[in-house]
Amino acid sequence: MKKVAIGIDIGGTNTALGIVDESGNVLYTKSPQVPTPKKEENPKGDQNKSDEILGRYIDVLETEIKSAMNAIPDMEVVGIGIGAPNGNYYNGTIEFAPNLPFVGVVNFAELIQSKFPQIKVVRLTNDANAAALGEMIYGGGKGMKNFVMITLGTGLGSGIIVDGDLVYGHDGFAGECGHTTIVPGPNGRVCGCGARGHLEAYCSATGIKRTVYELLAEYNDSESQLAKVPYVDMTAKIVFDAAEKGDMIAQKTFEVTGKLLGEGLANTVAHLSPEAIFLFGGAAAAGDYIFKPTKENLEKNLLPIFRDKVQILPSELSAGSAAIVGASALVWKELEKME
Amino acid sequence: MKKVAIGIDIGGTNTALGIVDESGNVLYTKSPQVPTPKKEENPKGDQNKSDEILGRYIDVLETEIKSAMNAIPDMEVVGIGIGAPNGNYYNGTIEFAPNLPFVGVVNFAELIQSKFPQIKVVRLTNDANAAALGEMIYGGGKGMKNFVMITLGTGLGSGIIVDGDLVYGHDGFAGECGHTTIVPGPNGRVCGCGARGHLEAYCSATGIKRTVYELLAEYNDSESQLAKVPYVDMTAKIVFDAAEKGDMIAQKTFEVTGKLLGEGLANTVAHLSPEAIFLFGGAAAAGDYIFKPTKENLEKNLLPIFRDKVQILPSELSAGSAAIVGASALVWKELEKME
Repeated sequence: MKKVAIGIDIGGTNTALGIVDESGNVLYTKSPQVPTPKKEENPKGDQNKSDEILGRYIDVLETEIKSAMNAIPDMEVVGIGIGAPNGNYYNGTIEFAPNLPFVGVVNFAELIQSKFPQIKVVRLTNDANAAALGEMIYGGGKGMKNFVMITLGTGLGSGIIVDGDLVYGHDGFAGECGHTTIVPGPNGRVCGCGARGHLEAYCSATGIKRTVYELLAEYNDSESQLAKVPYVDMTAKIVFDAAEKGDMIAQKTFEVTGKLLGEGLANTVAHLSPEAIFLFGGAAAAGDYIFKPTKENLEKNLLPIFRDKVQILPSELSAGSAAIVGASALVWKELEKME
Repeated sequence: MKKVAIGIDIGGTNTALGIVDESGNVLYTKSPQVPTPKKEENPKGDQNKSDEILGRYIDVLETEIKSAMNAIPDMEVVGIGIGAPNGNYYNGTIEFAPNLPFVGVVNFAELIQSKFPQIKVVRLTNDANAAALGEMIYGGGKGMKNFVMITLGTGLGSGIIVDGDLVYGHDGFAGECGHTTIVPGPNGRVCGCGARGHLEAYCSATGIKRTVYELLAEYNDSESQLAKVPYVDMTAKIVFDAAEKGDMIAQKTFEVTGKLLGEGLANTVAHLSPEAIFLFGGAAAAGDYIFKPTKENLEKNLLPIFRDKVQILPSELSAGSAAIVGASALVWKELEKME
């Protein structure tokens, strides 16, 4: 029987679920996706309420996992990999996730495992870590032992591969390059985490949006097409399309973003000296607009010994399935470790 | 026969050499130390001159290693560990070391090995990496799987331990926290590497000295005792002694240093989530003057999930023998890997 893994990605709004084979082919995807329980369902952080919502969510996932297994018969499901916000690989827990209705520490992997005792491996980590494993096992990181994955979405996530495995740190939460400081002091932008000047506040998709409107405000007479787009509707894709048409604000936005991203990644290289840094997400689709200034400013800030050695590459994971594929990669990596 | 390792540390001025047992006891130290060949001996970077100086240096080390072995009879020397500037663990090479007279890439470990074919292990890395291994095998890092060693000397070196082993990166040179940027832009201090605003430019012993004189210039009326000390004579010890006597400039120097060190180390924690960060070197001897502001400012800059988890600790390696002991630790680690 062909071996397959189930990948589950707990996103802010929806939970994606699919079946992936050892080559990274997605054989099944649950559609529409399962809604992720909302923070607003438990506004006071009540423990009983948290347990109740969690119980219901696990039941739904159990049903969906069974449907998936029935949809693809004659396969052996060897494991379930889960990407979750504040996911702790060591304990399989989701801990103090700020945007979920769950209170404190939730034994998520254990709860899923208890529903499927016959499945060998149930593992959990955060989504950016899962994406890094996906890149290593199925994508551009194949054969690389040391690289960094940067996901540019609502936030800026990262997964660090050292010597062929993820860096989890002593508590399971390592790999938060998005929360390194690139603009110290009181002038740094407020980050989603509350601190100021973090890389995420500038170089995530949200950060790019903020830069667009800062630049519009600064260059009031720019006649940029972007001035016609409401704040809530702005995306990296819109900025890219405008840049392609020669829009000054759009082009400048990518320059500013790349400058700061290059500076931030120089700190990452100083720590880890990776072979490559992969960029994933909408902003990465802007190609040279983002890669060129990033690479230039990375090189400018490196020790001589690190110069001209690090590749900045677009992720080879496909945008639509990366979350599921990344989560499933946890399973293959785990089986490799068990050998 | 008792197993021992030889540790060699190639410092800027002198090369230390000693014999260390498996518990970290130094059984023999070469005294006086061997002079390290000086950059000035080969001012034009001539290849023949480089080979000649290297040949002589290797011969001297061969003689001294033999003397050491004769001085401690009835021991089995299982390996030689070498700490060297720009030392590459993977190839055993010293590469483009800015302060040595050698040109390009030097196969240092191979040259030493060729003189002692009977010795099982000859390994080389940079001095801060060696110190980190020393801390893990003999010091406060015993039993820890994830920690960071920071050495505060002329420069700011670092060694990163992830999952019980050093992070070398794809090229052998990872672990340069001293060359992350903490003061971006044109106002950052020029670092020894030529870039601006690096952690090393502020928080190494040299950085502390620079801060003293910047503060003296700023607080012209301070009546600080430090104003009587010539720039060339200033040390972290002098600043500490003055701080103990209530000297405002001295105390402020440590505050500024700790603030920036805390900010810099927060970036390290975001990447690696270590259990502890060890500080080694003269500045670390200043105790609370440096540890308190460092810890405070580290915590201020951490993601909530990392707060109150990371210990900032003084190294448990003794200042006098750490270089030799660290280098020797490479041998025990290597034997562990070979098992």
